[in-house]
Amino acid sequence: MSAQELTPENALQNFADAWNRHDMEALAALFAKNAQFVNVVGHWWKGADEIKVAHEATHMTMFRESRLEILEMESRKVDDSVVLTRARWQLTGHIGPADEVLPPRTGLLLAVLHKHDGEWLIIDAQNTDIIEGVLSRPQ
Amino acid sequence: MSAQELTPENALQNFADAWNRHDMEALAALFAKNAQFVNVVGHWWKGADEIKVAHEATHMTMFRESRLEILEMESRKVDDSVVLTRARWQLTGHIGPADEVLPPRTGLLLAVLHKHDGEWLIIDAQNTDIIEGVLSRPQ
Repeated sequence: MSAQELTPENALQNFADAWNRHDMEALAALFAKNAQFVNVVGHWWKGADEIKVAHEATHMTMFRESRLEILEMESRKVDDSVVLTRARWQLTGHIGPADEVLPPRTGLLLAVLHKHDGEWLIIDAQNTDIIEGVLSRPQ
Repeated sequence: MSAQELTPENALQNFADAWNRHDMEALAALFAKNAQFVNVVGHWWKGADEIKVAHEATHMTMFRESRLEILEMESRKVDDSVVLTRARWQLTGHIGPADEVLPPRTGLLLAVLHKHDGEWLIIDAQNTDIIEGVLSRPQ
């Protein structure tokens, strides 16, 4: 990390900040080299490089003017070197195929933080969209 | 656990087995008391009791004859007491509002396993549907 040290408490806000600057170098730097990330439609990225390339693609297109906001966050310490943190987020300003601005959407992002050689990094993340009014997948 | 001891390697297969027997006592017993679970539409359940009650509701209705199959699984040891395991699953036999059988669906389930007092339990799970052919949420 550069100026600000990554901690379990600021990791997801740092993720949102990098997203909002559309700075995929900074976003990928939050992740361990062998981190995994599952996005909201089940893409299973393996490694910080895959995470970076995938986000570069969407931030050149549908997410290029989008803004990600953390609405709520909860952390649980598992042991001295592992913390689970989960945020409810809202995304605005993402665009559809005809450049139309789409309605805001919300979701839940889990990040598993691990301290290795004195440094906290995200080793795993999984994201799920919130779909209101249903118990499970709408058909 | 009863007959078979829970391990990081068999946790998600045990989850599928309990699902397929529609045995929500057994399913909830895989989780630590304060475990959390985010389902595919972003319900954020807190505690094994909430996880049990929520699954009881769906297994009396849409999932009552459903079958969950683990297609692929990957585990990563974080330290001696924490393991991340993620499965790609397929669900068949779930039914819609008119009792019609719906098409199979697939997804990715992450489970965080923690060993405490010599016993492995799931302390967190998050589930995401796989939606083919898109980079992010279809609109």
